Amino acid sequence: MSAHPRLSINQATIKHAPFDDALRVVRDAGIESIGLWREPVAEVGLVEAARRLEDSGLRMSTYCRAGFFTSPEGPERRASLDDNRRAIEETATLAAAGAPGSEAVLVLVAGGIPAGSTDLAGSRERVRDAIAELAPDAAAAGVTLAIEPLHPMYVSDRAVISMLGQALDIAEQFDPATVGVVVDTFHVWWDPQLFEQIARAGGHGGDGGRIATYQVCDWATPLPADVLLGRHYPGDGVIDFGAITRAVLATGYSADIEVEIFNQQIWDSLWTDVVERTSEAFSAAVGVHLDAAAPVRR
Amino acid sequence: MSAHPRLSINQATIKHAPFDDALRVVRDAGIESIGLWREPVAEVGLVEAARRLEDSGLRMSTYCRAGFFTSPEGPERRASLDDNRRAIEETATLAAAGAPGSEAVLVLVAGGIPAGSTDLAGSRERVRDAIAELAPDAAAAGVTLAIEPLHPMYVSDRAVISMLGQALDIAEQFDPATVGVVVDTFHVWWDPQLFEQIARAGGHGGDGGRIATYQVCDWATPLPADVLLGRHYPGDGVIDFGAITRAVLATGYSADIEVEIFNQQIWDSLWTDVVERTSEAFSAAVGVHLDAAAPVRR
Repeated sequence: MSAHPRLSINQATIKHAPFDDALRVVRDAGIESIGLWREPVAEVGLVEAARRLEDSGLRMSTYCRAGFFTSPEGPERRASLDDNRRAIEETATLAAAGAPGSEAVLVLVAGGIPAGSTDLAGSRERVRDAIAELAPDAAAAGVTLAIEPLHPMYVSDRAVISMLGQALDIAEQFDPATVGVVVDTFHVWWDPQLFEQIARAGGHGGDGGRIATYQVCDWATPLPADVLLGRHYPGDGVIDFGAITRAVLATGYSADIEVEIFNQQIWDSLWTDVVERTSEAFSAAVGVHLDAAAPVRR
Repeated sequence: MSAHPRLSINQATIKHAPFDDALRVVRDAGIESIGLWREPVAEVGLVEAARRLEDSGLRMSTYCRAGFFTSPEGPERRASLDDNRRAIEETATLAAAGAPGSEAVLVLVAGGIPAGSTDLAGSRERVRDAIAELAPDAAAAGVTLAIEPLHPMYVSDRAVISMLGQALDIAEQFDPATVGVVVDTFHVWWDPQLFEQIARAGGHGGDGGRIATYQVCDWATPLPADVLLGRHYPGDGVIDFGAITRAVLATGYSADIEVEIFNQQIWDSLWTDVVERTSEAFSAAVGVHLDAAAPVRR
């Protein structure tokens, strides 16, 4: 069975694979695209990582991740914003090195409530303010900042932005080529306003809409002891991928679709097995809802 | 330090205390009100439980819990609805036996997505349909059905109703004396629409509004291995009890305020210590925002 042409493997799905192995197992499985992470890129160095990505012939679908914007003004906030500026530059470098159709999309996680604080509203305002500060840098670099709403179980320690509507409230204050949103099924599948907010998001960032990347994995209970790792192959849980995928496509979204799974058991499996299983699961749960032809934009 | 006159201890906070012990430790701490659960009531029998509640001189603030409405039509759904009708009768009996100011409020948990299904929308519709079927029984018994939105981490296995706005969308289809909502800080503190939805809920069920009970406990991370048990004493986490409590009071809410904590460490502590600590935490985190005078309605 051949891989779906719009499937992208997010590198976190094979977290423990070194950079070269990650490129190799994805390419050897006939998959055309990969979502990269900063830590493994830093391990080989940015220039070298860009060279190897170019050699691989793969597209880069997203670069993960920066953000963490909730610190009040001070050295910690300045350091975080400087780090985000570096991430923007890295995104541009890697997207230029990837195969045609690569996306200069930087995924942003908002950050949790600062230690000792109960100021949720203030934390959310500081996310908006940070995006405003970074938007000119992103525009200059041709990078789209993609605000990712995370499941509400992460509000206190990881992301004060939980719902697609919140992410859009911020994104809409900026040029769509510069600030977009992430739709990750694991985080938003439960949202009672999901379909109206996907429709509001409209199209792909570069096309004037706001969905900068669409990511898929499944939700199942019971959750594991570490609730970060409760993600599953599409089809192994309760998410209706047909309904969500059709809604995302209806907005004109035409980029790659990433599978990003944090799951200890999957991380402990053979990378080639994981990629093969991901490809099969994607085709069965998501690919059937897509036009198998090449993405519109390529 | 004396207990706040509007504090009610939800029986689940001292889960392992037998019925008589629960009544005793609450009363001995100078607390005037208790939220009862069906299982311990069933252990002593309804009539006997009502007699003992009456002897205790305590008010009953809520009766927990019924619901689980997401099964498709069939014997399982019929059994669940029959069980809910019994719970309505139990609520009326116990509220009549409690001290003046007792509330005939039955807390309802929606239920999760049925096994093997991915039909979230259909599950939510079946919750609405079940409430419609039970409303005449509740009205006849003088009982308020209180729909409790649960945190979105429970959508798949416990409650397809996650947000206060969803609960109000259902409740507003019925008489406010018959169908209301629960505001439990643990479940809704993160909701970006919380304050607008509290304002929409308005007042106390019996007074024409929709907030049938206000429950408080705190959220902290990391979550424990069993995410049901990640609740904390008010003040030990990230929730802004001042802002939420003021918003609830502004609607005219005048009933008791329950502390309901599911936490293994607290369950393993001495009941008298737990009740004393709860009383102190409530006064410090919530009571300071209340008028210390007796509730308006009594």
